[in-house]
Amino acid sequence: MLNSNSPGVARSVAASQPSPARFLALIAEKLAASEDLFLEQLASDVPFIEKASEYLFSSGGKRLRPAMLLLSSRLLEHDSDEEVTYSAVIELIHSATLIHDDIIDHASLRRGRTTVNELWGNSLTVLLGDWLYTTAMKMALSHDNLEVIRRLCDATLRMTEGELLAQQKLGSSNISADEYFHITRRKTAFLFSAACSIPSLMRPARLEADELLQRYGMALGTCFQLVDDLLDFTATEGELGKPVLSDLKEGKLTLPLILLLPRLQPDRRRLIEMVLKDGDFRRVDRREILELVTSEGTLDEVAEMAEKLAAKAKEQLASFRVCDAREAMEFAPDFVLQRRS
Amino acid sequence: MLNSNSPGVARSVAASQPSPARFLALIAEKLAASEDLFLEQLASDVPFIEKASEYLFSSGGKRLRPAMLLLSSRLLEHDSDEEVTYSAVIELIHSATLIHDDIIDHASLRRGRTTVNELWGNSLTVLLGDWLYTTAMKMALSHDNLEVIRRLCDATLRMTEGELLAQQKLGSSNISADEYFHITRRKTAFLFSAACSIPSLMRPARLEADELLQRYGMALGTCFQLVDDLLDFTATEGELGKPVLSDLKEGKLTLPLILLLPRLQPDRRRLIEMVLKDGDFRRVDRREILELVTSEGTLDEVAEMAEKLAAKAKEQLASFRVCDAREAMEFAPDFVLQRRS
Repeated sequence: MLNSNSPGVARSVAASQPSPARFLALIAEKLAASEDLFLEQLASDVPFIEKASEYLFSSGGKRLRPAMLLLSSRLLEHDSDEEVTYSAVIELIHSATLIHDDIIDHASLRRGRTTVNELWGNSLTVLLGDWLYTTAMKMALSHDNLEVIRRLCDATLRMTEGELLAQQKLGSSNISADEYFHITRRKTAFLFSAACSIPSLMRPARLEADELLQRYGMALGTCFQLVDDLLDFTATEGELGKPVLSDLKEGKLTLPLILLLPRLQPDRRRLIEMVLKDGDFRRVDRREILELVTSEGTLDEVAEMAEKLAAKAKEQLASFRVCDAREAMEFAPDFVLQRRS
Repeated sequence: MLNSNSPGVARSVAASQPSPARFLALIAEKLAASEDLFLEQLASDVPFIEKASEYLFSSGGKRLRPAMLLLSSRLLEHDSDEEVTYSAVIELIHSATLIHDDIIDHASLRRGRTTVNELWGNSLTVLLGDWLYTTAMKMALSHDNLEVIRRLCDATLRMTEGELLAQQKLGSSNISADEYFHITRRKTAFLFSAACSIPSLMRPARLEADELLQRYGMALGTCFQLVDDLLDFTATEGELGKPVLSDLKEGKLTLPLILLLPRLQPDRRRLIEMVLKDGDFRRVDRREILELVTSEGTLDEVAEMAEKLAAKAKEQLASFRVCDAREAMEFAPDFVLQRRS
């Protein structure tokens, strides 16, 4: 795809169309080593830690952030244990965030599986999250690279702030698209940005690559969140493990609704506000809301924004050498756009 | 006191008896700088963070851990911004632990003041704790000393593990003195140990001092917890901001009761188990329990253990040069023994 102007490469690319499986193969070995590493780190003489983290990590998960870190590392021609460690660290931080978020959301299910807080209660789960965050930092320290630790701390702070801001907007219909993007960058995009750019901080540091990879990660992460928002309208319960419009029911206003609200007459606006207030669909039919976002076209608008972000992510890669890792990173935004779960 | 065999020094020491005020004066300036520093770090564009942390830190607190770090730093003749940073970091980590502990304990009051979770709810408080932990790490990074960050991570992990182990023993009467000390070392003593030993990791590193100061901190921290346990029996509500035997009511078995239980006849044992189970004193009179620990002498035994730990802490200082900081650190265990709140 990348080198379609070169006939030789074009042929070989045609023979192997971009697919998640093909790109995962590039980093499969390191991704497996990273899984082994974090399972090893979760060994503990505190029986609960061992039991709960085994449960947590047996659930699988997409491992998208560690995969991006490993691809970016391959792009920069690193090949050592260091990127394996950081990819495990990124997944640990992500997991810690999820289990604290599940406490906050009083979630009993995540991707169709009982949450840690539902199984063991909030007290142990708060502590498990703390332990995972700190274990992640401790692991990251093992390569003596302070810049990487700083980047990880920054991403963690921004995520926590994003979640705090989101919490304070919960149940409110008063949120602008600007505020939404501000929160999304912190809550979701910064960790993607850290994952994609950390390899540029590995020795020898590549400062010119750092900025591009940070921007790549920010665009990819924001795109990821927009697709998440869209899936709340378009995915089936089978795909997502939760019914349509679950975000709205939980008091979270997604971008299609944020764009929709100022265009609605007060009586239509009231429908959305009622669901936010009630936390259920007893007074409003889900189909009414779906009808509104479809007829007003805000679903399509958000899909278009997500596509633009995907394109913006890809653009950041233009100056990197052409290689399998770059091709995979150019495919990643499409993968994010196409995901159904 | 230290040099009573030297008449000149003996006179000057007699003129200035050890007192908390006298020793605090040694580090007052740095302690104030450390307060300024962490208030500065808590500035945030997230309004809740600013509001909640202002509330949290206006409550005062003993600042015992940062004070110990600064004294130990003075003992090792450091005089820079670095120890000021670490003393702020230690207090931030301690605060993050307390606010997560208050969620876990469903505490509505701490030292007579409404807790953050009671004021703003668990969700925001979980996130505030995460933010404080990460801010602490970020601050600590500013002096490029990886060994210090490792020590801080280790202490935080041990604390979290200690709290997890304690949580799992909650409401249980089945806990041995060995288990108690194992939990106490992790939950309380490791952070004291980190506070006291971090100055030995500052450049130039002092490895021989490190081990002694770690041991000093472990003994002091364990002593601190034993005194805490004793205060649950002996302090008035005015001193502690909570009624006598609050720990027991919350399902926490303190050392005087752990030592007492195996010596009791089943019917007396039942009294303690009833309070643990009920979480209140409706079926048992507090005076009955107080009578048991007094008549069996376990309060005195624990007081004796605390004194031995205080002596052990002091012994670790024997090889350090005689100076005001050493004198203050030799007094600190006595201060801990004498505290009433």
